[in-house]
Amino acid sequence: MKNESQIRALIDNWAAAVRNKDMDGILAHHSNDLVMYDVPPPFKSVGLEAYRNTWDIFFKYTKPGVFDIRELHIMADEHIAFCYATMKCSDKSDTGEFIELPFRLTTGLKKIDDQWVIVHEHHSIPAK
Amino acid sequence: MKNESQIRALIDNWAAAVRNKDMDGILAHHSNDLVMYDVPPPFKSVGLEAYRNTWDIFFKYTKPGVFDIRELHIMADEHIAFCYATMKCSDKSDTGEFIELPFRLTTGLKKIDDQWVIVHEHHSIPAK
Repeated sequence: MKNESQIRALIDNWAAAVRNKDMDGILAHHSNDLVMYDVPPPFKSVGLEAYRNTWDIFFKYTKPGVFDIRELHIMADEHIAFCYATMKCSDKSDTGEFIELPFRLTTGLKKIDDQWVIVHEHHSIPAK
Repeated sequence: MKNESQIRALIDNWAAAVRNKDMDGILAHHSNDLVMYDVPPPFKSVGLEAYRNTWDIFFKYTKPGVFDIRELHIMADEHIAFCYATMKCSDKSDTGEFIELPFRLTTGLKKIDDQWVIVHEHHSIPAK
């Protein structure tokens, strides 16, 4: 269970960094060539700089401090792992009010030099 | 690379089964307790019966025979793997015309009794 608990800590720290708007913390365990599928466009973001941009968009439209993990499932082998979770943030509506936004997260990880690194992230909400 | 090629064949066969509306083929390598995050609601589907329902919805609104893998990346260890892909189907618009719909796929797999099984699937399009 060592891998699972390392990954749980990594995901918990990442979510806390989002709540704290701590960009270095958000990016701390992501690979340079990660591929991100996010809630808003673009369709796909490749690389750490593009991944950082998705957070600039996120912070423009959501309520600071709200980025909560509801249930997190982790499946880990020695070098490859993935996890999926239901999450919650708070999204600015057309009237400027914040509305609770549940979303889904799937994350793919690889162990590099004995450290877990996120190489893929998929965030989404169901289509209307 | 044995695990990667087994998984590539599994995903290729699954997509072909979708194109052929072959429900047994679609469900052939999914676990009984898989968790699915799909493009349309519901937010989350748990278990094989709920997963089957997502395909009944899919076949109601999309053009038969269109379910194409554009680029597929696979990361596999001995017992755990994940893959992510950009995909394409064809969606019925309000006027009844079919419109090309690119979407994103992430899949989580576990090797059970020496066979790869899908335990998690996440399909999405960017939010409008």
